Amino acid sequence: MDKKVFLRTLAGEATPRPPVWLMRQAGRYLPEYREVRAGAGGFLDLCYTPDLAVEVTLQPIRRFGFDAAILFSDILVVPDALGSEVGFVEGEGPRLIPLQGGADLARLSPARLHDHLAPVYETIRRLRRDLPPETALIGFAGAPWTLAAYMIEGGGSKDFLRARETARREPSMFGRLVDLLTEAVIAYLREQLRSGAEALQLFDSWAGVLPPDERARWSTAPLKRIVDALRGEAPVLCFPRGIGAAYAAFAAEVRPQGLSLDTTVDPAWAASAIPKGVCLQGNLDPALLVTGGEAMLEGANAIREALKGRPHVFNLGHGVLPHTPPEHVAALVRALKSA
Amino acid sequence: MDKKVFLRTLAGEATPRPPVWLMRQAGRYLPEYREVRAGAGGFLDLCYTPDLAVEVTLQPIRRFGFDAAILFSDILVVPDALGSEVGFVEGEGPRLIPLQGGADLARLSPARLHDHLAPVYETIRRLRRDLPPETALIGFAGAPWTLAAYMIEGGGSKDFLRARETARREPSMFGRLVDLLTEAVIAYLREQLRSGAEALQLFDSWAGVLPPDERARWSTAPLKRIVDALRGEAPVLCFPRGIGAAYAAFAAEVRPQGLSLDTTVDPAWAASAIPKGVCLQGNLDPALLVTGGEAMLEGANAIREALKGRPHVFNLGHGVLPHTPPEHVAALVRALKSA
Repeated sequence: MDKKVFLRTLAGEATPRPPVWLMRQAGRYLPEYREVRAGAGGFLDLCYTPDLAVEVTLQPIRRFGFDAAILFSDILVVPDALGSEVGFVEGEGPRLIPLQGGADLARLSPARLHDHLAPVYETIRRLRRDLPPETALIGFAGAPWTLAAYMIEGGGSKDFLRARETARREPSMFGRLVDLLTEAVIAYLREQLRSGAEALQLFDSWAGVLPPDERARWSTAPLKRIVDALRGEAPVLCFPRGIGAAYAAFAAEVRPQGLSLDTTVDPAWAASAIPKGVCLQGNLDPALLVTGGEAMLEGANAIREALKGRPHVFNLGHGVLPHTPPEHVAALVRALKSA
Repeated sequence: MDKKVFLRTLAGEATPRPPVWLMRQAGRYLPEYREVRAGAGGFLDLCYTPDLAVEVTLQPIRRFGFDAAILFSDILVVPDALGSEVGFVEGEGPRLIPLQGGADLARLSPARLHDHLAPVYETIRRLRRDLPPETALIGFAGAPWTLAAYMIEGGGSKDFLRARETARREPSMFGRLVDLLTEAVIAYLREQLRSGAEALQLFDSWAGVLPPDERARWSTAPLKRIVDALRGEAPVLCFPRGIGAAYAAFAAEVRPQGLSLDTTVDPAWAASAIPKGVCLQGNLDPALLVTGGEAMLEGANAIREALKGRPHVFNLGHGVLPHTPPEHVAALVRALKSA
C-alpha cells in the first residue's frame, strides 16, 4: 500500500485527515524563492534550469511539510516548446507572438517538444530522488483551451475575447491548434510520468470565460481526451476554473480522478452535485490566507466539514497571493495536520 | 392590461415571442453615440445632462426597435452622489479616491443624494414622454457589493482583492459601507420609479469574485434587502454575474421578478434549476454578436429553445462589445421579432 496520504486520498481511500498542498506554494511570498528568482535570468530560465527548479519546488516542502510537491514550471512551456517564443515581462506577465491564423499555426511543430522540455523531465527525476518519502510529486500542464487563448491573445487578458472571436470566426483553424496542443499535452504529461511524477494536474484557468457550447467543444472535450489517454497510468486532477454549475456535468462526463474547485464554488453544493468517485480538491479563499488568524482557520474547517465523508485534498481555490505572510501558511498546515 | 411585451413577460405572462433588449445597447458601437459622446465633456457629464442622456438612450430604440430602453447612466453615480468623486480616464475606465477606512467612510453622506441625481430623474421623466408607447423603460443601479468594491479599489480590478481583503480584515467598517450603499440604492431606485421607470435592474457585476460565505453576506443579503424593499412597486431584475451554481439558491432566496444569466450559464440548466416564477433574462455570448451570421442566429435560437415554456427576456450574457457591427444587432432583433 502506498504510504503517501495524497495518493491514497486520490485513489478514493478514507484517510484520517485530508492531505494538503497549495497552488503556487512555491513562489514570491517566500523570501527564499525571491532570492533564487533574483539570481536567475528570465522567469523561463528558472523553469528550464533543473538546479533552480528543484530548489524552489522543495522550499515550501522544507518549510511547511506539505503532503505533495508540485513541479515548479509554467503552463506556457508547451507553447514555448512548440515554437511560440514565450517571454515574461517583469510585473506584467507573459508575452507571446500572437498567433494570427493558419500560416502562424503551420510554423508550430511538436518535433522538438521533448528536447525542449528535457530540463523539466530532469527536474522531475531529481525531485523524486530528493523529496521526503511521504511527499507525492505532482506534474502538470495547461489545458489546450487556456494555452490556445494565451497564444492567440499574445498574453493574458480579462476575457480572452480575441481568442473567443477567433474560435467563432475560424473554428477549423482553431480546432487544429487545439488538437496540436492536446496531443502535445498528452505527450508531455506521459513523459512527466516516465520521469517520476505520481499524479498530474491540468489547469484550464480560463475555462470560465467560455459560453456553454464553446466550453463543451474547446475545454471539456480536449480535457476528456487527455484524461482518457492517461487513464490507468496516473491520477489526473482537472481544474476547469470558473465553470460554475457546469462542474457537475464536467465531473460526470470527464470522470477525472480529482477535481479542483475554484474559490467561488460552495463545497456543500459540490459534495451533493459531483459524483462520489471524484476526489474534490480545494477551495479556501487565498484572501483568507492573507488575513490569517481565526477567520482563516474557521474558513478551512467549514470546507473540511462540507466535504467530510468523501475523498478531499485540501487546497486553495486559487493560487497563493504574493503578499501572503508565510507564518499564516505555517499555521494553516499545522492546524490541518493536527486536527 | 399592459401593452408592453417586456412588462407582460416580467409579470409571468406567456407572450408569443420573448421581448428583447441588450445590455449596453446604447454605446460606443453606434456612430451616433460616438458623435454625442465626442461633444460631451467627461463621461459623467453625459450621464448628468438630460438632453444628452435622453438622446443616447433613444438612439438604439430608433435604430432597432428594442422592447425596452434602459436609462443611460453609470452604476458609479451613486458613489459619486455620496461624495466619492468619481472620474473616468479615457480608455482606462473609472477612477475614484480609494476609500481606506472609517475616516473616509465618515466623510460620505446621503444628504445630497437626490439633489445630485436630479438630472437622472429628469432624464427618466423625459424618456417616459419620448419613448414609443410599446417600449418599456428600465431604471437601474449598481449593487452594494459591486459599488463598495470599486470604492475601495479606487477603480476596476481583475479580482477586487483589496476590497475582499478589507471586507475580511474590517468587516464592521465594510458592513457600514454596504449598509450606506444599500439604503442609498433603495432611495435612488424608488425615486427612479416615481420619475417614470417601469422596471429596475440591479447590476452586481462582481458578485462572481466572492467565495460563498462572503457572497452570502455582501452580495446576496443586500440584494435581498433591496428587492424586498421594492416588492410590489415594480419588477426588479437581478444580475449577480459569475455566481455559477449559486444562481439557483440566489433565485430561491432573493425571489426577484427577473434574473439575468451571464454568458457562462447553460440556459437548459437554468431552466431546470431556477424556480419557474422567476423570469430569466439572457444570455447570448456578445462575441457571437461580433461574429454575426448563421452562428449568431443559431446561438440565439438555442437559448430560446432551452427557455421555452417559461417567461424569458432575450438579452446578452454581458454588454454589447464596442466593435460590434450595428447591422448584426439589426439582424438579431429582426430574427427575434419575426420568429
